[in-house]
Amino acid sequence: MSNTTYEQLIDHHRRMELLVSTTYLLAWDQETLMPRGGGAVEYRARQMAQLARLTHERRTDPRIADWLAACESDTELTVDPTSPSAVNLREIRRDYNRATRLPGDLVEQFTQTSAMAKNAWAQARQDDDYEAFEPWLKKLIDLSRRKAECYGWQDGGEIWDALADGYEPDITAATAEAVLTPLRDPLVELIDELIVRGAEPSDRFNEIIVPLDAQRAFVRDVVSHIGFDLERGRLAESVHPFCIPFHRDDVRLTTRFHANMLNDALGSTLHESGHGVYNQNTPAGEHIGTPFGSAIRLSIHESQSRMIENHVGRSEGFWRWCAPKLREYFGGAYDALSFDDLYGGANRVQRGLIRVEADEATYNLHIIVRFELERALLSGDLSTGDLPEAWRQRYRKYLGVDVPTDALGCLQDIHWAQGAFGYFPTYTLGNLYAAQFYDAAAAELGDLQSQFARGEFEPLVDWLHRNIHQHGMRYPAPALCEHVTGKPLSSEPLLNHLRTKLRSIYQLS
Amino acid sequence: MSNTTYEQLIDHHRRMELLVSTTYLLAWDQETLMPRGGGAVEYRARQMAQLARLTHERRTDPRIADWLAACESDTELTVDPTSPSAVNLREIRRDYNRATRLPGDLVEQFTQTSAMAKNAWAQARQDDDYEAFEPWLKKLIDLSRRKAECYGWQDGGEIWDALADGYEPDITAATAEAVLTPLRDPLVELIDELIVRGAEPSDRFNEIIVPLDAQRAFVRDVVSHIGFDLERGRLAESVHPFCIPFHRDDVRLTTRFHANMLNDALGSTLHESGHGVYNQNTPAGEHIGTPFGSAIRLSIHESQSRMIENHVGRSEGFWRWCAPKLREYFGGAYDALSFDDLYGGANRVQRGLIRVEADEATYNLHIIVRFELERALLSGDLSTGDLPEAWRQRYRKYLGVDVPTDALGCLQDIHWAQGAFGYFPTYTLGNLYAAQFYDAAAAELGDLQSQFARGEFEPLVDWLHRNIHQHGMRYPAPALCEHVTGKPLSSEPLLNHLRTKLRSIYQLS
Repeated sequence: MSNTTYEQLIDHHRRMELLVSTTYLLAWDQETLMPRGGGAVEYRARQMAQLARLTHERRTDPRIADWLAACESDTELTVDPTSPSAVNLREIRRDYNRATRLPGDLVEQFTQTSAMAKNAWAQARQDDDYEAFEPWLKKLIDLSRRKAECYGWQDGGEIWDALADGYEPDITAATAEAVLTPLRDPLVELIDELIVRGAEPSDRFNEIIVPLDAQRAFVRDVVSHIGFDLERGRLAESVHPFCIPFHRDDVRLTTRFHANMLNDALGSTLHESGHGVYNQNTPAGEHIGTPFGSAIRLSIHESQSRMIENHVGRSEGFWRWCAPKLREYFGGAYDALSFDDLYGGANRVQRGLIRVEADEATYNLHIIVRFELERALLSGDLSTGDLPEAWRQRYRKYLGVDVPTDALGCLQDIHWAQGAFGYFPTYTLGNLYAAQFYDAAAAELGDLQSQFARGEFEPLVDWLHRNIHQHGMRYPAPALCEHVTGKPLSSEPLLNHLRTKLRSIYQLS
Repeated sequence: MSNTTYEQLIDHHRRMELLVSTTYLLAWDQETLMPRGGGAVEYRARQMAQLARLTHERRTDPRIADWLAACESDTELTVDPTSPSAVNLREIRRDYNRATRLPGDLVEQFTQTSAMAKNAWAQARQDDDYEAFEPWLKKLIDLSRRKAECYGWQDGGEIWDALADGYEPDITAATAEAVLTPLRDPLVELIDELIVRGAEPSDRFNEIIVPLDAQRAFVRDVVSHIGFDLERGRLAESVHPFCIPFHRDDVRLTTRFHANMLNDALGSTLHESGHGVYNQNTPAGEHIGTPFGSAIRLSIHESQSRMIENHVGRSEGFWRWCAPKLREYFGGAYDALSFDDLYGGANRVQRGLIRVEADEATYNLHIIVRFELERALLSGDLSTGDLPEAWRQRYRKYLGVDVPTDALGCLQDIHWAQGAFGYFPTYTLGNLYAAQFYDAAAAELGDLQSQFARGEFEPLVDWLHRNIHQHGMRYPAPALCEHVTGKPLSSEPLLNHLRTKLRSIYQLS
């Protein structure tokens, strides 16, 4: 009996995922191909809104509550918490509760407010006018607090937890702080050491202009070598690179090209291909369209993109392999550059104002600023009026830079303007997981850098398949980390990785 | 009150069209970009089936019957039969009746049978084994008869009418015969005259190999010159060229390229751009997503593609303009060819077996064979067992060729294998409408060929906008023809066009 109920529940979920993946196609096409003129953009928004409405109807179908109740009391389905059935019930329960706990009027109010706030933010950023945006930020925080009250949070926790849970299940501000704060001060010290006492690598890599078509052919070669299957996916171009999976056999990546920014194109494409390789290797067959068959969002997904972007794509071994490839695709364009110009050029550390332009090391400080500030905004410890000044203080303290304008300060990111609080830390959690996974892989597989230098990326990627990808959502992120590395997440592996690599490049070791 | 009801009806229809256009995107992506490996194809079929089911639910929503009844009795909405409201009511009524008249079990049986028949047909064609396909054809004819009984037809008409009405509203076998049969024998005579007594143009045009990228750039230049707005549409590649509109500002074309078939690429792209120009110029604003704002299917749509493909793209004036362009895109590749090699090469008439490879003249005889045979199959005058022999007889009589195998004979097209009876004549009706429209345009605009020779296509395309495109579905096809040309559809304009052009090319005038 309950098996039939379980099948109904899963079938319902799979049908909902058909709509979700169709919405993904609408989004992909909009960013990669759709004409921008006339009424095409507005019509596309209507198509997407319609599918969003149909998806929400299915996500909140009251039959789900009955099906879940019947299945959750069936021990056969739940006795092994890592079984596909138990995982599916756990995730569908989480999804259903979050989707149904908000009253309709709050959902509507939030959707409307965030749409208007996003417009106000874009204008305010352009005008460098924080005051024009502040009332909207205040409204979004008030509404987010109401949302958090509906979702609820664990005893001893705080309001931030309820919102972050939508991006990173079961995370709390306390657990995030436990890994982010130990990262912060040593990272500030390391960056100071590099910049004050180290030998900065040259920026000659980014001064060389090469044809876009050669760049396109080059990155395709690299990402397929790294394990992204271009026969089960596509690589296109868009303003902001992204990865979106329609199905494990149809994963779409985008990247971008500029004549003098091969390094940017390579990094972006490797990053997205890390997401893509994960999506292409989640559980197959009957698990497709189920939570168990899906990748873990968001930090673990980010760990896979950072693994390929940073631990592979900015590594010494990778550049030993890649340097001769440059000659193959770009003729003599890079001939005057030394190995250090290439490898060092891909690893320059710079005190900067803008998160999305940050290097592998400083990036995490940009995140920590945001985590600390959003936590304080939500708890009420920081008022929206005091945000710009708090931002300036932290950028001075952690990143060592003066923030000249709010446009280059607290107005730079879209996240808060969309009401996305609790999202930022997943980026750095991804970096932390990536470093810890890399160490575990290296302990098992030996000298990965020598393998990379010989063009052998398969051992690492195969290790990722076996240890992470093939499990789908079997484990929650912290449990996966313990399962794979034998330890809870810690800031040490990332710190060690950055210290070792960057001190060597900056000739401090 | 009824205005509100009318708005509800239109709003409901617009929402349904959002789903339809989303399905179009799934189809476009499948043909142009989607990976073919793994489970991507099957998953895409499920996404499309889901949207088809959601669309059908909306199309047959019982509230439509109530809304229609209320609106149809409101003279304010219907007093002017060419007003947007009257047209929308007329078309939604037609759509609703056709969608609801079939019992669910018949729809299901037809869907399943045609899916299996399509597979059986593909195999039978490959094996040249008509006997293996015949039972499926018989089943499809039986089911189509049952469908026709549900739809019903006019007194004095016949079963074919009820099925053809789904492709060409209000057409009857008698009205189709009244234009197709007067075309048949004179066309047989003309082709005989050309081939027996005329001077056949050389085929040197199709012997020259040119790079695909140059072909791509060339056809883009030509179609944008001809009036297809590439800023409000896209041109991609697929195995079979097609045009699909998501919105009047987002019309997607596909074409195909082969190294030695520039002529084929040009003809295909011009054909699809004719459809595209129509879709880009249907009524805008509030009419988008309504029947009134849509193009007339199928023969009038085909007339626009044939206008651009044949009356423009195979005309002397076009080639006077285009010949120098070849030098621009392909260097000296075509230098050894004379004007007659180009213009004549685009207008060679050949007795052939295959419809999709046929020239402008013989094409219509391929259609007339199919029209006569499907009419006889449905009425019972011809049994499926006798189809191959009847096919051979007609190909001998009309086209002057011996059909060596059924694979090259009655098994060549997919249409009947999908249960599409009554579809074929719309192709030749399109040719007839195109010729009659062209004459009317020339009567108003003067010497179109001289304009084309100067690269001036705008007068003709503007005439099409004013007389055809901007009306959307205001007029049924026959009424549009009378409105635009002052006469009912006739076979004379097409016959005159082919006689004049081809006798001149074949040096018989």
